Amino acid sequence: MTRVQVVDTTMRDGANSFSHQFTTDQVSAIAAGLDHAGVKLIEVTHGDGLGGSSLQLGRAAHSDPEYITAAVKAVKDARIAVLYVPGIATLNDLAVAQECGAQAVRIAVHCTEADCAEQAVRWAREQGLEVLCFLMMSHMVEPEVLAQQAALLDSYGAHVVYTVDSAGALTPSGAAARVRAMRDRVSCEVGFHAHNNLGCAVGNTLAAIDEGATYVDGSLRGLGASAGNAATEVLVAALEREGHKTGINLFDLVDVAEDIVAPIMPRPQVIDATALTIGYAGVYGTFFLFAKRAAEKYGVDSREILLELGRRGVIGGQEDMIIDVAAELASKTGVRIGVGVRA
Amino acid sequence: MTRVQVVDTTMRDGANSFSHQFTTDQVSAIAAGLDHAGVKLIEVTHGDGLGGSSLQLGRAAHSDPEYITAAVKAVKDARIAVLYVPGIATLNDLAVAQECGAQAVRIAVHCTEADCAEQAVRWAREQGLEVLCFLMMSHMVEPEVLAQQAALLDSYGAHVVYTVDSAGALTPSGAAARVRAMRDRVSCEVGFHAHNNLGCAVGNTLAAIDEGATYVDGSLRGLGASAGNAATEVLVAALEREGHKTGINLFDLVDVAEDIVAPIMPRPQVIDATALTIGYAGVYGTFFLFAKRAAEKYGVDSREILLELGRRGVIGGQEDMIIDVAAELASKTGVRIGVGVRA
Repeated sequence: MTRVQVVDTTMRDGANSFSHQFTTDQVSAIAAGLDHAGVKLIEVTHGDGLGGSSLQLGRAAHSDPEYITAAVKAVKDARIAVLYVPGIATLNDLAVAQECGAQAVRIAVHCTEADCAEQAVRWAREQGLEVLCFLMMSHMVEPEVLAQQAALLDSYGAHVVYTVDSAGALTPSGAAARVRAMRDRVSCEVGFHAHNNLGCAVGNTLAAIDEGATYVDGSLRGLGASAGNAATEVLVAALEREGHKTGINLFDLVDVAEDIVAPIMPRPQVIDATALTIGYAGVYGTFFLFAKRAAEKYGVDSREILLELGRRGVIGGQEDMIIDVAAELASKTGVRIGVGVRA
Repeated sequence: MTRVQVVDTTMRDGANSFSHQFTTDQVSAIAAGLDHAGVKLIEVTHGDGLGGSSLQLGRAAHSDPEYITAAVKAVKDARIAVLYVPGIATLNDLAVAQECGAQAVRIAVHCTEADCAEQAVRWAREQGLEVLCFLMMSHMVEPEVLAQQAALLDSYGAHVVYTVDSAGALTPSGAAARVRAMRDRVSCEVGFHAHNNLGCAVGNTLAAIDEGATYVDGSLRGLGASAGNAATEVLVAALEREGHKTGINLFDLVDVAEDIVAPIMPRPQVIDATALTIGYAGVYGTFFLFAKRAAEKYGVDSREILLELGRRGVIGGQEDMIIDVAAELASKTGVRIGVGVRA
């Protein structure tokens, strides 16, 4: 039975499902609740990480330093982590986050671009931060390729390297194979970050732990991009049933989910046609709301947009393409593409 | 890669989440949609099966013969199945169902009571019905005990025996162990019926298929008791991604879920505190709405009711106990029992 470090990302990945509109009071309340329940690592920032608040990615209600400060002040034992995506965040943003009290950073790059993380990993290690690295869209490459990228991150000094299923496109066999390959190649800890588009968020996470993952992510009520993440409280219950140790009080955690997060959710985190198509097509989960809005605006099926984005291999950072594709599909009115225009 | 028979139970297990209030028009529309998408076996009746419409278990909007007739008339290729729980249904109910056009019966008994199914199994086989048997609350017994019960059902003439996770209390390792034990013991087909209380409905079903299950259940949008079932459309997408064959057109299926079922759902099928507690405590999923109502009426936490029911080993058919337990807990105001009274 494994000692598992559960990382909560309600206030970072969850912000994607919230159009980044958390108030600092909400952040304080959720952070305090998570800390009380025994969660030791809590991620806070714009959904796209430090510096993500922008016209293209969506303006947040507050700045990252405001969110970080609110969370840091609310916790007693937990450490606060921030997301850092090279190209969106700068090292200066990270320095400011650390001044606000952040103690850990999650550095996220596309699954074939580990080298883009090198500068930030080395710098963060020098500053004494805990460094967790994300290989996003991990389903797009074979396990051995992913493991090579993980080995690079390990060599830069990462404390943890993650298989990140950004699209929710993995099933347990694929999740297990990727974690196993990484586990064989690195000396640092291995983590797994799930999305629930194929209904496998918890199943994949359990499979990852069976293969040696010791860091796993969740968000309360599953709040997160597209179909959402593994729900932290559900994951902890499943981990306990499997005999793993988390150090978290389940019912205290459920109270935070039920009494604080559920009432403020803009919509329940369900696997609708758009979310399912994201997993099936293997496109980036944060495209969810963009695709829904573009589908409404142009009168096309969001599934067609997503399948076309999948065919073109569009990845995070290329959100402009969503509108382009929607407009193109709309101009072909009456022509069935992919699954066809719906009534 | 396995050829998998996906059975849809939206209009049977889903009725539990709907207080059994489907209209016959809704049943016609859903059955037609499932048939068009290529689903070959569709279950229809009151949530507790033939004869379930009652004051204690909840009155249905229509009689079982009305529901069955509506479904039979709506399909071209699919067969219609009915649920038969000995003690609730009678053989006469089953005869009427067959006259209405039902071609399959799912005979459900508690996991230690296979012998209670013998009469119905033998009778149904004589009538030429396809016979699928459910061992409910399978998490309550060890795999070998379950396999012995399955062997009895096999000996009576069942075409399929199911591991049924009525409480949604299993995780993939437990689901796999039970299916493997059954597979080793019976000559008939093996099935798996999931609930999603621990977020493992799809993961458990995939694990069951890896161990030799060839019949798996789903309901559109997961509509079903407590946290609901594996969502049929999500399950089919995951099965395709794993390389299994279902003979179902995914996007036609998604259309039924999105355009017909989602708009009529009384509430989204999410894993809230009550549903999670059902899985964690291992109590019967159909207790969900009863426990919620009793909690409101008596001003106690539904989780306390469920944990106490779990401690007492209450099973399906003992729904009266829910009110008794709620009243007892309410009389102890201020005394913390289990997880404590919530504000």
